[in-house]
Amino acid sequence: MNWLIVDNFIKSALCEDMPDDDITTNCTIPKSSCSTVDLIVKEDGIIAGLDVFKRVFFLLGDVEVEFFVSDGTSVKNGQIIGKLTGNTRNILSGERTALNYLQRMSGIATLTSKFTEKLAGTNTKLLDTRKTTPNMRIFEKYAVKSGGGCNHRFNLSDGVLLKDNHISAAGGVKEAIQTVRKNVSFVRKIEVEVENFSQLNEALEAKADIIMLDNMSIENMKKAVQLINKKALIEASGNITLNNIAEVAKTGVDFISTGAVTHSYKVLDLSMKNLKNIDSI
Amino acid sequence: MNWLIVDNFIKSALCEDMPDDDITTNCTIPKSSCSTVDLIVKEDGIIAGLDVFKRVFFLLGDVEVEFFVSDGTSVKNGQIIGKLTGNTRNILSGERTALNYLQRMSGIATLTSKFTEKLAGTNTKLLDTRKTTPNMRIFEKYAVKSGGGCNHRFNLSDGVLLKDNHISAAGGVKEAIQTVRKNVSFVRKIEVEVENFSQLNEALEAKADIIMLDNMSIENMKKAVQLINKKALIEASGNITLNNIAEVAKTGVDFISTGAVTHSYKVLDLSMKNLKNIDSI
Amino acid sequence: MNWLIVDNFIKSALCEDMPDDDITTNCTIPKSSCSTVDLIVKEDGIIAGLDVFKRVFFLLGDVEVEFFVSDGTSVKNGQIIGKLTGNTRNILSGERTALNYLQRMSGIATLTSKFTEKLAGTNTKLLDTRKTTPNMRIFEKYAVKSGGGCNHRFNLSDGVLLKDNHISAAGGVKEAIQTVRKNVSFVRKIEVEVENFSQLNEALEAKADIIMLDNMSIENMKKAVQLINKKALIEASGNITLNNIAEVAKTGVDFISTGAVTHSYKVLDLSMKNLKNIDSI
Amino acid sequence: MNWLIVDNFIKSALCEDMPDDDITTNCTIPKSSCSTVDLIVKEDGIIAGLDVFKRVFFLLGDVEVEFFVSDGTSVKNGQIIGKLTGNTRNILSGERTALNYLQRMSGIATLTSKFTEKLAGTNTKLLDTRKTTPNMRIFEKYAVKSGGGCNHRFNLSDGVLLKDNHISAAGGVKEAIQTVRKNVSFVRKIEVEVENFSQLNEALEAKADIIMLDNMSIENMKKAVQLINKKALIEASGNITLNNIAEVAKTGVDFISTGAVTHSYKVLDLSMKNLKNIDSI
Amino acid sequence: MNWLIVDNFIKSALCEDMPDDDITTNCTIPKSSCSTVDLIVKEDGIIAGLDVFKRVFFLLGDVEVEFFVSDGTSVKNGQIIGKLTGNTRNILSGERTALNYLQRMSGIATLTSKFTEKLAGTNTKLLDTRKTTPNMRIFEKYAVKSGGGCNHRFNLSDGVLLKDNHISAAGGVKEAIQTVRKNVSFVRKIEVEVENFSQLNEALEAKADIIMLDNMSIENMKKAVQLINKKALIEASGNITLNNIAEVAKTGVDFISTGAVTHSYKVLDLSMKNLKNIDSI
Amino acid sequence: MNWLIVDNFIKSALCEDMPDDDITTNCTIPKSSCSTVDLIVKEDGIIAGLDVFKRVFFLLGDVEVEFFVSDGTSVKNGQIIGKLTGNTRNILSGERTALNYLQRMSGIATLTSKFTEKLAGTNTKLLDTRKTTPNMRIFEKYAVKSGGGCNHRFNLSDGVLLKDNHISAAGGVKEAIQTVRKNVSFVRKIEVEVENFSQLNEALEAKADIIMLDNMSIENMKKAVQLINKKALIEASGNITLNNIAEVAKTGVDFISTGAVTHSYKVLDLSMKNLKNIDSI
Repeated sequence: MNWLIVDNFIKSALCEDMPDDDITTNCTIPKSSCSTVDLIVKEDGIIAGLDVFKRVFFLLGDVEVEFFVSDGTSVKNGQIIGKLTGNTRNILSGERTALNYLQRMSGIATLTSKFTEKLAGTNTKLLDTRKTTPNMRIFEKYAVKSGGGCNHRFNLSDGVLLKDNHISAAGGVKEAIQTVRKNVSFVRKIEVEVENFSQLNEALEAKADIIMLDNMSIENMKKAVQLINKKALIEASGNITLNNIAEVAKTGVDFISTGAVTHSYKVLDLSMKNLKNIDSI
Repeated sequence: MNWLIVDNFIKSALCEDMPDDDITTNCTIPKSSCSTVDLIVKEDGIIAGLDVFKRVFFLLGDVEVEFFVSDGTSVKNGQIIGKLTGNTRNILSGERTALNYLQRMSGIATLTSKFTEKLAGTNTKLLDTRKTTPNMRIFEKYAVKSGGGCNHRFNLSDGVLLKDNHISAAGGVKEAIQTVRKNVSFVRKIEVEVENFSQLNEALEAKADIIMLDNMSIENMKKAVQLINKKALIEASGNITLNNIAEVAKTGVDFISTGAVTHSYKVLDLSMKNLKNIDSI
Repeated sequence: MNWLIVDNFIKSALCEDMPDDDITTNCTIPKSSCSTVDLIVKEDGIIAGLDVFKRVFFLLGDVEVEFFVSDGTSVKNGQIIGKLTGNTRNILSGERTALNYLQRMSGIATLTSKFTEKLAGTNTKLLDTRKTTPNMRIFEKYAVKSGGGCNHRFNLSDGVLLKDNHISAAGGVKEAIQTVRKNVSFVRKIEVEVENFSQLNEALEAKADIIMLDNMSIENMKKAVQLINKKALIEASGNITLNNIAEVAKTGVDFISTGAVTHSYKVLDLSMKNLKNIDSI
Repeated sequence: MNWLIVDNFIKSALCEDMPDDDITTNCTIPKSSCSTVDLIVKEDGIIAGLDVFKRVFFLLGDVEVEFFVSDGTSVKNGQIIGKLTGNTRNILSGERTALNYLQRMSGIATLTSKFTEKLAGTNTKLLDTRKTTPNMRIFEKYAVKSGGGCNHRFNLSDGVLLKDNHISAAGGVKEAIQTVRKNVSFVRKIEVEVENFSQLNEALEAKADIIMLDNMSIENMKKAVQLINKKALIEASGNITLNNIAEVAKTGVDFISTGAVTHSYKVLDLSMKNLKNIDSI
Repeated sequence: MNWLIVDNFIKSALCEDMPDDDITTNCTIPKSSCSTVDLIVKEDGIIAGLDVFKRVFFLLGDVEVEFFVSDGTSVKNGQIIGKLTGNTRNILSGERTALNYLQRMSGIATLTSKFTEKLAGTNTKLLDTRKTTPNMRIFEKYAVKSGGGCNHRFNLSDGVLLKDNHISAAGGVKEAIQTVRKNVSFVRKIEVEVENFSQLNEALEAKADIIMLDNMSIENMKKAVQLINKKALIEASGNITLNNIAEVAKTGVDFISTGAVTHSYKVLDLSMKNLKNIDSI
Repeated sequence: MNWLIVDNFIKSALCEDMPDDDITTNCTIPKSSCSTVDLIVKEDGIIAGLDVFKRVFFLLGDVEVEFFVSDGTSVKNGQIIGKLTGNTRNILSGERTALNYLQRMSGIATLTSKFTEKLAGTNTKLLDTRKTTPNMRIFEKYAVKSGGGCNHRFNLSDGVLLKDNHISAAGGVKEAIQTVRKNVSFVRKIEVEVENFSQLNEALEAKADIIMLDNMSIENMKKAVQLINKKALIEASGNITLNNIAEVAKTGVDFISTGAVTHSYKVLDLSMKNLKNIDSI
């Protein structure tokens, strides 16, 4: 991770949770108190965000964090996956923010892995979307990768995706692709969303790099895969669930995208336990 | 909402999604193009975050937003709840960020309302926690209120909550409360988490303002409510679900808190549809 | 202190005093020059802000600061209370900003202690207000505590204080308290300002947590204390001076607040003296 | 004032006082409520900072501010000097921050005018110093001018002032002046602090632009003025009070500087009164 | 342009040039003075950056800017290309910053157009590089387009370019391409720099999207174009000058990149002239 | 350099080039890889900006930088002037930003030295202007000094320069000078631009500190130097080139200013070469 970027988000989150002091901790815990504490998993899942968790304490200072697993690892309820050693005040004051990141990122990795497991044995890959939490995208896209998924474009500036409104404004699929090709950097692939075979044929003719099949039936997707015949990468999109993803993958599409992995996940339950005072760091 | 604070988060989110230009939109949509578009609900739920949605377009400029409902309202699949009129580029470039806020806030309000419905007819109120998404707390706590819930402390600096580690460091419940009372501002209530009746008695003796019953059985909660006998506000916490919340409420506790409303919600499905070109704003 | 917050203020202050370089120092002092210098008190008072003083040099780098006293200590004219060792340029460039913080914070602590001395032997405590210098509140409220005072609410978001305009808008003291209780977080105490006994009775009836007696005569304050009879905390406010505070305290109020400690203090005279070149740090 | 700079300070101050909402006001005052309110003087003095006061409400929005006096004007206890019209919530939420600026700036102008009155009939001018409140310098230096004073350098980067440590590091007054002249921009005047006549002669020889007489006796100052004989501007500094400033001025020095006007002023008592609801703006 | 991003750069530039006030202007020009002034070209070239020029005055306020040309237009020495009307102080205070942007952007457009003229009649396009001025990339890349050039990747995060160090670390061209393809988002094209035909063949075999011929001779470039045979886009790079670019283009490469357009341009001479006082805006 | 200021610019530049990760490097270079690499000169010139180059890697972390020359030194094509040792990823990710600063600053120093060489043997000094790149002034003004030039004022707030518009608004040269003298800090010198001898005489009469001869002929400059006769510093300005600067200097002016050194320089060609893997730092 690019810490110059990430630190701004983490500092902002720490200030959100502590605009002044941690009044409870500062009243009860001596300034020089040191402790160790375990990081424990309370629910099976995939862990993601360990470096972010650690960075929270680096920014607060005087806390060392050691991990026994790495991002993308499957963890079990009851497993101790890390240990913190350092200033007790900073451990307690940073706990919630650090866990808020780690639990969300692990929740995303866990849900993503459930989707990617369904794709085992196929060549189809799972994609995320831009339906991420504001000011969390860099963390959430990272977590999708930890869960075995792939990232779609990061934002509106670094990838082209022509949707219905762009197409109709441009006067058709072909015109839209040609206009974009003429104007954007040649390092960008051009992706276009198609809803029917007429649009699909235009997209092929205009040499789209990626064709998104939007909300097509399984039958039509199969037919589209045949028509495209490796001349473009294919992304299937729309109403993807754990129940239907395997069937969609069987149509032979290259990618299946779903917003659910970043907009409708549950956190992975994790906590810090067994705080013990020690003499010093 | 305090826009001086909120604007910083929204601008940061817009830049996250658009560090340079929206390359697809700017290549296909003329700079002066104007449109109207509808904001449509695609799933039943409670709406929250309309002012935030509107503010996204205010910050981008040249887009007017009109709503037909207000925050906290129950909305239905298919319902048109708002209309945008203005610069087409800004409508398309802001769409995702605006929806990312609105869908999450509405998802939280919707889940919260499911919990609060279970409390109907009781005097018990639902509380949120600090288990919010980093840099989203101001939005998520607002959404909890839109869903009928109440807010717990906003952060570590504006409320006292003595937990096990604070208590053991202070040498007991009583000592912890006394230390805090001596040191924090007199405008703060003092809340203490108790795990057994011995701690509870100490808390009462030391005149805690709020007592949190942590993971107690229903039986013990009932007993605790009797013991406390209105001498402190009571919060029940730990493993609260839609299934058990009604039973917990029957014990007579004043508040029930759950992290789920902010850490394990699904977004409410909403979208912008029917974009139509118009001559000008 | 939460350095993530405080550092932003200190960095801003250093840039205010040094938008480019310290042109005088950089022209005359070699880059590698090292020195020691004493921090000397030039006027009797109470010291406050030592950690802030030290942090200024930490942010500039390459200067160690050692103190022989701690915040809240009484210091005497001529007393050497600290010693700086390090890069001469940074010592000279940071001197003014570091002293500007330390002298103001010590000035506040000194004035506060003059007020709190008058309260010796009573149970009444001194409170500050929100009449602090813009962008200095975190420092000034800290200094009040160093001088033996207590902090009132930190800001408009973390404490409720119903004043005349709120009361009349709500339709009365009682209505105001009830409206607030229904809408704010249950962790907030509710304070209400009363000007007469009718309002006071309403406040008691509505179970205000704190009652502020605004500009009442000594006689009326005594009467109010009897009426309230421990059912709420009592704050006396308005025209408090070093001359009348003892008398006000005798009425039995719990707290006396005064803006003077943060808005009309004189700095404590301090300076850095005896700069001596040394070979290296 | 350069609002691009000033706005950052004001916004920061508003967020310091309102990190979330003004919970008291938002619970009791309807969102659409409009009012007028008077700005009243409660103590005789010189007003300064009216544009800053107004800017606070401009940044909050929906409040118009009209003034009946201008900065630098003498105002009297009881005088109504301005009127605010607009959104009641914003009036109440911005009141404290706006007054915190205005009262401090007016306090500085008032104290400054007491010093400058003593200089009436002489050619000597009053100077401020860098002993300003961190993050308040732009406001405090402005206020000094409103009170009839003049500004010394703004910061360490825009003016040269050689003090004892610089002089001894450079190997003498002459060497220090020559080194600086060689290295700093030719647009900077060179000021040097002298403590005796030997240093003064060196300063004249090296053609210092400004000579600061540091803590000299009245006799020595007179002698120095004669020696300098218009070949440099003369600043007297050290232990200047309202009692001795006239005598110092009589020595014929061009400028007298004092830190007191920015570090030991009392605020000018001002308040907002007579809030009246109106139908709309 | 995305003003949310661009405004931060412009505000920072304005504060760089005016950390406090424009002391010359504020002393001599009345606050309410209004003027018109012409924007005049003093050297033939291509104009670029008009919106940025205008935005400078928008951010300062109270100045209207009207243009008679648009970005990418050829302008002549002596030509009046715009007119400013508004507050005289803001016109004079913003003049230098506004011109600093406009002159640099126009200088880049002008130099770019000299390169692109040499490519007239070919299918080869001119590319910029990342050799841009720190904190000016968004402006400089825009200017390249105004001059008829195309943009290469915007930064290290939005485009893949495998150079010698990446290739040797990965163990060869093929391995590097495969590793990247597996790990980066599928929306990214993969570009690889090759220095010889062995590397070129590996690149083709691994299906690189873009092949950069680094410092190849004209002969080798011709040969490479034949070998690649439309199976990848081709970029020629290294020591491109106005003298050799036409010859390089004749080899049939798709793109030619040069850092010179952003790192070694001269500004286009422009100025504001004929300031005339008017009664009001 | 004042790193508190400079770091903000460098961090912003690094984020401009790397809003997320360096995707090419992170896919191909192991996280723990360490290397050494040489910093090589590819063109004769004057080096400037070594500390800034080093600071880029300090901010990225884990890279040590050693230099064999210092700022202002003449360097030759092929010369190895520094060596980097550390984390390979950070070396590659920071390379472009570090070089973008160093090449520009060295380009400015090199061009400046060409001008200053022409002044050898005279007492005339070369000055820069405010025609610097937005957000690069602190770097560019530093580079001018490394090349043997002198700095004019840094910005509009720290130096007075009366130009034609200020003069005509004030009602003449004399009136302009008097107005400014009355209003600005006494530490500021007053410079005035004159176009003819009538204005020059007024400037002398009003005791301007610096007189700028704007676009005067060589003959007139000579005459002006005689007239001024050391009573003010003299700056010659307008159409200064490497061809005419020596002749202008011979007129006896104290300073000659030119915008070319910061607005029309070419970068100095530098690169990082010979990257070699090592075991560890």
